[in-house]
Amino acid sequence: MDLRGKTVTIAHGAGGKQTAELIAQVFKAHFSNPYFTADDAAVLPAPEGRIAMTTDGFIVSPRFFRGGNIGKLSICGTVNDLSCMGAEPLYLTCAFVIEEGFPFEQLEKIVSSMEMTAKEAGVRIVAGDTKVAGKGQVDGVFITTTGVGRIMDNVQTSGSFARPGDSVLVTGDIGRHGCCILLERDEYGIEAEVSSDCAPLWNSVKAVLGKVPEVHVIRDATRGGVGTVLYEIAQESDTGVLLEREFIPVDPAVRGVTDMLGLDPMYLACEGTLVMVVAQEKTQEVLRILQTQKYTHNCAVIGHITESEKGRVVMRTAIGTQTYLPQPGNELLPRIC
Amino acid sequence: MDLRGKTVTIAHGAGGKQTAELIAQVFKAHFSNPYFTADDAAVLPAPEGRIAMTTDGFIVSPRFFRGGNIGKLSICGTVNDLSCMGAEPLYLTCAFVIEEGFPFEQLEKIVSSMEMTAKEAGVRIVAGDTKVAGKGQVDGVFITTTGVGRIMDNVQTSGSFARPGDSVLVTGDIGRHGCCILLERDEYGIEAEVSSDCAPLWNSVKAVLGKVPEVHVIRDATRGGVGTVLYEIAQESDTGVLLEREFIPVDPAVRGVTDMLGLDPMYLACEGTLVMVVAQEKTQEVLRILQTQKYTHNCAVIGHITESEKGRVVMRTAIGTQTYLPQPGNELLPRIC
Repeated sequence: MDLRGKTVTIAHGAGGKQTAELIAQVFKAHFSNPYFTADDAAVLPAPEGRIAMTTDGFIVSPRFFRGGNIGKLSICGTVNDLSCMGAEPLYLTCAFVIEEGFPFEQLEKIVSSMEMTAKEAGVRIVAGDTKVAGKGQVDGVFITTTGVGRIMDNVQTSGSFARPGDSVLVTGDIGRHGCCILLERDEYGIEAEVSSDCAPLWNSVKAVLGKVPEVHVIRDATRGGVGTVLYEIAQESDTGVLLEREFIPVDPAVRGVTDMLGLDPMYLACEGTLVMVVAQEKTQEVLRILQTQKYTHNCAVIGHITESEKGRVVMRTAIGTQTYLPQPGNELLPRIC
Repeated sequence: MDLRGKTVTIAHGAGGKQTAELIAQVFKAHFSNPYFTADDAAVLPAPEGRIAMTTDGFIVSPRFFRGGNIGKLSICGTVNDLSCMGAEPLYLTCAFVIEEGFPFEQLEKIVSSMEMTAKEAGVRIVAGDTKVAGKGQVDGVFITTTGVGRIMDNVQTSGSFARPGDSVLVTGDIGRHGCCILLERDEYGIEAEVSSDCAPLWNSVKAVLGKVPEVHVIRDATRGGVGTVLYEIAQESDTGVLLEREFIPVDPAVRGVTDMLGLDPMYLACEGTLVMVVAQEKTQEVLRILQTQKYTHNCAVIGHITESEKGRVVMRTAIGTQTYLPQPGNELLPRIC
């Protein structure tokens, strides 16, 4: 279908002929796989053992940004949430709410990114839904994805499993997605080349857990960034976190922007960077594996879990001074994911 | 927590302390069950055999209506989609997009309806997500629910399984949800007491399939109404449908309103009424079972599947005249679900 100049109308969301056409021409054309359903629900072989299930809504503004768009992000977010539980992403659903008048060309780009990202992560999109809201009743397009995965044998991760002495890792440099969105909004007049880190991380996680199933914690540092995740882990496991400031990988462009604006990259969202907590003796092996994987070669140990300072995160500088990382909770950048 | 007068702020969606409070005070307070997760995904025992998975976005306006609200609807919609596949609803996720300034009291009412409806259907809410969009970027609250269910043994339903001679049933009187929403919007100045049929139908479906697993088709007649569903079935199974107008159950108030406005109840949404296609010799047994169940005692045979008129739906009146039911596809009432 030639989509140029065409826009989504209320009739595309009414459940009749136009809805069927939209599904056939845009969604089926991209998401086609043996499980993709025309019925009320997809019929799927049940995975064995334990499954993981997660959902995420995406409302990012702007919806196209350097390094990705809302479609790619919506697949990465759910794939990464499953990955954090050690679950192989199997089935994904996606629900769209689209504003009347939304250009088909943009929808096509979004859906095509979703297809590519799902393929890369090895997950199948099995069911979808489309609603159309009137002009001004939704800002462009919102996407909700939900995923089901099979948890790898012998793997059990949880924020409460961090133990004193464990190493704290990040799988890449931090704060890039949040910084990128901030620049895209162009409210500060800053010119800097920062791409979102938005990426599906299942292949990296699978490689690590295949060799080291006993990783204690895996969390993706999305909204709230690495700082918020570390406070959550400290509180859930009743331990402390001691970070070495100089070890924390930050892209020089991100550092420049955050210094200029007085922001802390620890509190900017990542969309392709995980926090891992690993027993000290397994740390080098995990790092070596991550370094061989596509999105995680910038991985680094940034600190360790402590018995003291329970529930808190302490930052140590190169010259040895220590300060508490500020508690998260202020109003952060809205609509970053 | 005393929610009176409080509203949702951007900080409630930022992933930090306020998000955690919102989850604890509203969502956890209502959705609490052993599987409800604080981690990135819920960890669940995998069902055996075949599973069904479905997703649905809900943007209904107004969000509170006679007989339900957007929360109740969001559970019913997904429970009913699973039911149509003969799947016992097991796990549900829900993702909220909330407008800044949305009153906590309304959110609390919505979430509490979701809890009650999920309990009635025997399904567990296992994971959720909350995003907050700025004022004017979303109209109040949108909810996306996704469900996973276990398909009953020996059950296989599909729109393509209708066979000539099969009976066509509805499980209740039709068009009530669409008519109710239309009246609630108060654009026509019509006074009539019409309640939405919004209801979770798993218990009815389970009762039927427990005795008659060989039901051919089950579809919920939501957007597009019964007319659209029947056209879908005719096309997917390459058969015709012959309806007897006088057998189609329509609430007198709905009949009055639709006659006044020149609408056809066949094209108004139902949210608690299914279409079933059943072998002729099983019809009486299915009717008897439906009549004993809470939401389906108004069930009726409305016609049968024909070999002729493939892909079309024919309506026969009491005096024997036959006309084609108009093909669905015009712009129907927007934001009814």
